[in-house]
Amino acid sequence: MNFLEERIVKDGVVKSGNVLKVDSFLNHQMDIALMEEIGREFKRRFGSKKVDKVMTIEASGIGIAAFVAKEFGVPLVFAKKSKSINIDGDMFVAEVESFTHKNKNQVIVSKRFLHENEHILIIDDFLANGCALQGLISIAESAGAVVEGCGIVIEKGFQIGGRVIRNMGYHVESLAIVDAMDAESGTITFREQ
Amino acid sequence: MNFLEERIVKDGVVKSGNVLKVDSFLNHQMDIALMEEIGREFKRRFGSKKVDKVMTIEASGIGIAAFVAKEFGVPLVFAKKSKSINIDGDMFVAEVESFTHKNKNQVIVSKRFLHENEHILIIDDFLANGCALQGLISIAESAGAVVEGCGIVIEKGFQIGGRVIRNMGYHVESLAIVDAMDAESGTITFREQ
Repeated sequence: MNFLEERIVKDGVVKSGNVLKVDSFLNHQMDIALMEEIGREFKRRFGSKKVDKVMTIEASGIGIAAFVAKEFGVPLVFAKKSKSINIDGDMFVAEVESFTHKNKNQVIVSKRFLHENEHILIIDDFLANGCALQGLISIAESAGAVVEGCGIVIEKGFQIGGRVIRNMGYHVESLAIVDAMDAESGTITFREQ
Repeated sequence: MNFLEERIVKDGVVKSGNVLKVDSFLNHQMDIALMEEIGREFKRRFGSKKVDKVMTIEASGIGIAAFVAKEFGVPLVFAKKSKSINIDGDMFVAEVESFTHKNKNQVIVSKRFLHENEHILIIDDFLANGCALQGLISIAESAGAVVEGCGIVIEKGFQIGGRVIRNMGYHVESLAIVDAMDAESGTITFREQ
């Protein structure tokens, strides 16, 4: 097990309905030393790529992506979720369905912060059905930017997102891929990588 | 002018209606080197305090607060905005009115991440009418935690929030206090500190 898998086993909580709670260290309370280690690990995995900018989506992606951007020495841009129908022409827009909240959001990034031929590393905390990640990829492609890869902290390997996005040809690196969880026993099965 | 005021003059944009856009370096695209400098500056200003945890509110506060937490070597907890009426008993809740979006949100923090006698440093990007900050203070007080101070990146000195919260006896440090802005000329007047 790597450092993240060990931490998930130690502090993650499996709830019924395939819910994995990691809010004590990742997405409500954040262990900053862990964030720094995640930043260094993504730098190791994507270090051979040209990365001009790191991109993520609010809210819980921001803290993680900030430390990845620090490692690469580049700016971070975070997409915003918006309910408003009237987005002006200055924004790249993608429509994203939330698996957790069962609603649709528009995801927006200002055209001032994504440019043609810019090389982008996308970072997010979770990959499940892949809708948020597809939204971010779609926005980057609209800008004519180059998606160098997608760095995910925890992938739910039993959901379709990772397979869909790898099949589209994108380089996805997930620090932990959960292939199965059992709420009764609390056991988590990670994919061997 | 300090480093932040200089950056605001260089890259901030004054819009009509007393709007100050800093989205090119602070709250949409983030300059990570600036975030680190902000972290060090708050460490300098609050370094004599006992700080067990840094607290902020999603979304744009997270990136800033993460680097403050790094400087203090403590965890970050970020409050979440929720529309749901049914919050279970495991949450501290405050109701917050958004000046920007003209709506009300419930702000929540899990009771697992704030404890009696814990010493809290609250960090946020903007202080205007003070509603978000009052919500965070109210949550910390509900937990029986001790609010050691509030670190704000940009305070709108012509709005009431800063005065209200200082009058309540809290130690507020704002890296830049904007006393006036003129959209036509683009000029920004900072308070001498």
